[in-house]
Amino acid sequence: MTSRITAFFVTKNRGKFREAYRILSKYNINLKQLPEEKLEIQSDSLEDVVLYSIKELVKKHPKKILVVEDAGLFIEVLNGFPGPFSSYVYKTIGLKGILKLLEDKPTRRAYFKSVVAFHAPGMGPRIFTGLVYGYISYEIRGSGGFGYDPIFIPEGSDRTFAEMSTEEKNAFSHRGKAFKAFAEWFVQSFSSRA
Amino acid sequence: MTSRITAFFVTKNRGKFREAYRILSKYNINLKQLPEEKLEIQSDSLEDVVLYSIKELVKKHPKKILVVEDAGLFIEVLNGFPGPFSSYVYKTIGLKGILKLLEDKPTRRAYFKSVVAFHAPGMGPRIFTGLVYGYISYEIRGSGGFGYDPIFIPEGSDRTFAEMSTEEKNAFSHRGKAFKAFAEWFVQSFSSRA
Repeated sequence: MTSRITAFFVTKNRGKFREAYRILSKYNINLKQLPEEKLEIQSDSLEDVVLYSIKELVKKHPKKILVVEDAGLFIEVLNGFPGPFSSYVYKTIGLKGILKLLEDKPTRRAYFKSVVAFHAPGMGPRIFTGLVYGYISYEIRGSGGFGYDPIFIPEGSDRTFAEMSTEEKNAFSHRGKAFKAFAEWFVQSFSSRA
Repeated sequence: MTSRITAFFVTKNRGKFREAYRILSKYNINLKQLPEEKLEIQSDSLEDVVLYSIKELVKKHPKKILVVEDAGLFIEVLNGFPGPFSSYVYKTIGLKGILKLLEDKPTRRAYFKSVVAFHAPGMGPRIFTGLVYGYISYEIRGSGGFGYDPIFIPEGSDRTFAEMSTEEKNAFSHRGKAFKAFAEWFVQSFSSRA
């Protein structure tokens, strides 16, 4: 077994960090929060957004093991809106705005997508994705989580993400899946090197 | 008088180019369209977006005189939404989505903002802004212009931008104002050098 490695998760969002930390600690990966701004480009593709972000961060922190993540809520009947611009939309029209836009729509299908990008000195960036399908609820429900959690019901549940504990949400969630995919690859790659 | 200078407007939007061309030709500036992709960052500030775009374009075209422009519709009661993300919002929820979001709102005040960035070899970038205040209409009206023109009524008019000719719209518009500010500065700077 390799010695414990420290990776830096660049995010200002404490909720995101907490979710990732819970998962990675099970794989014996030591995650630290680096609460810095990261540059995000405007793109329909979350993959492009995180690849650009990490490329810029590497210039600043060339010796660190870095992790960034970006996620979005994609609503089918709104052509994927708010997608990669989920944080901006959340800050402006908010959950009520989303419910309003869906008021007279025939379907409320949506998915959350998370893309994790990883970079270590001497290794090119790698990305890992996680998806969770579900529905937008008819009203705001629950107080856990953050962002769109109070209006997203994953398939196979009747509760919103905000009505679940971090552990429960991680079992379903896009971010949980992306970080698990990352952790499994990470543990395998780094232990085979030791 | 200095000889006629050619500036390249980096945009894939033919409607934007046409508006800018009409204005600049009155100042004897020869504008050409360079229909390339430009990198846009996610930011609440249009100024940051265009400054970053032009910085990246200069790396690719160091010897050209370059112009870029970005614009957004800022709706007061929606906290500035869709703002710098106006094109993405237009492609996804569209004009109908905006009207839906305003259905039960007490005010429909909004403004359009345009920011023009300019760069010439040996000169740092300069920016010029233009604003037009107005209201969001209750329905989609007119077929001219592009983007949000069919739902925006400038103060002092009872018609939407899409119900006006390019000439009429330019007299009011944010883009018209920003390009006029640019043209006046440009003509003065470059003729004093000759």
